[in-house]
Amino acid sequence: MYNPNHFKITDTELIESFISQNPFATVISIKNESPIVSHIPINRFSNGRLYGHMANSNPHSQIEDNSTITAIFSGPHAYISPNYYKSEFNVPTWNYSSVHCCGKLKFVNDKDAVWELFNEMVSIYEGAEGWRLPNETKFKNLFNAIQFFYIESPEFEAKFKFNQNKSVEDIESVIDSLEANGENEVAKLMRECTNG
Amino acid sequence: MYNPNHFKITDTELIESFISQNPFATVISIKNESPIVSHIPINRFSNGRLYGHMANSNPHSQIEDNSTITAIFSGPHAYISPNYYKSEFNVPTWNYSSVHCCGKLKFVNDKDAVWELFNEMVSIYEGAEGWRLPNETKFKNLFNAIQFFYIESPEFEAKFKFNQNKSVEDIESVIDSLEANGENEVAKLMRECTNG
Repeated sequence: MYNPNHFKITDTELIESFISQNPFATVISIKNESPIVSHIPINRFSNGRLYGHMANSNPHSQIEDNSTITAIFSGPHAYISPNYYKSEFNVPTWNYSSVHCCGKLKFVNDKDAVWELFNEMVSIYEGAEGWRLPNETKFKNLFNAIQFFYIESPEFEAKFKFNQNKSVEDIESVIDSLEANGENEVAKLMRECTNG
Repeated sequence: MYNPNHFKITDTELIESFISQNPFATVISIKNESPIVSHIPINRFSNGRLYGHMANSNPHSQIEDNSTITAIFSGPHAYISPNYYKSEFNVPTWNYSSVHCCGKLKFVNDKDAVWELFNEMVSIYEGAEGWRLPNETKFKNLFNAIQFFYIESPEFEAKFKFNQNKSVEDIESVIDSLEANGENEVAKLMRECTNG
């Protein structure tokens, strides 16, 4: 990813928090010089690994174990009008946040491990009070139709493109304009990551 | 993309409208068996073509003219709890909408053409009353630092995964739950694309 220094994020905690808040990933692997692309939630589990799962009938389930994959986590983004800035000489741009994670896909084949992983995934989304996976055969049988995997040796590249190359006045003005347009998520993240 | 029939969208007008509403694309091409990925707005122009642009310093600008690229347009998406359904036997899933566009990248090298294209792009985002590109040398010089391109012979694959394999009662219940959680964009698109 084209990632000039003023947009580059290397803070591991910030990257992990971003993935937790934006787990719905675009997963890419290459086969015969073409991309295979799937849209899959990937979450960081308590052992520190990034896990996801997909249907057996997804062609992505047929790739070889240990294949290189790239998972792209996408955060809030918005069109930025030149009218948003205080200064005069600007052109339209797009502000956005993205984390690319490259690593090796490792399938989890042990059924008991998959059951445990699915339970942990449910807790991540449902919290303490939400839905729980019933300990019933008909639910356990569903897991015959999916492939759980994790990403081994993940390497991260993170870009938060939020006008960090502009003045504080411009950044504040862009945040105000975004909020005025109801683009609150991108405004909030932009405020957290800049001096605005 | 894994795309079972009940989620597949082939309506060209719906696909074009989706791209217009979700122009911020993830662009993938392959070099030396690795993906090059950029995040770029791509818009449908009045001549029917899909145009985008990127900085010269983006490695993606160095790929060969006529290279195969995939542009992924992503729409609203949300986690779906089993608690959202009326029926009993469900597991967590993710509802989402995605259009993949595969074609040949063609660079636009004519400077006058690029100026016209940039003006049209500004109109798309700014509407009739918004910012206009000043007809000044300092703005025209900026275009020396970017590469405009279009996607030739685009082929589209669209997936709107919105519980179409569930009962109308379940779909209505999911939409109500999403709205109750403030997930209004995904609820709205889900309502438009299902019987809910």
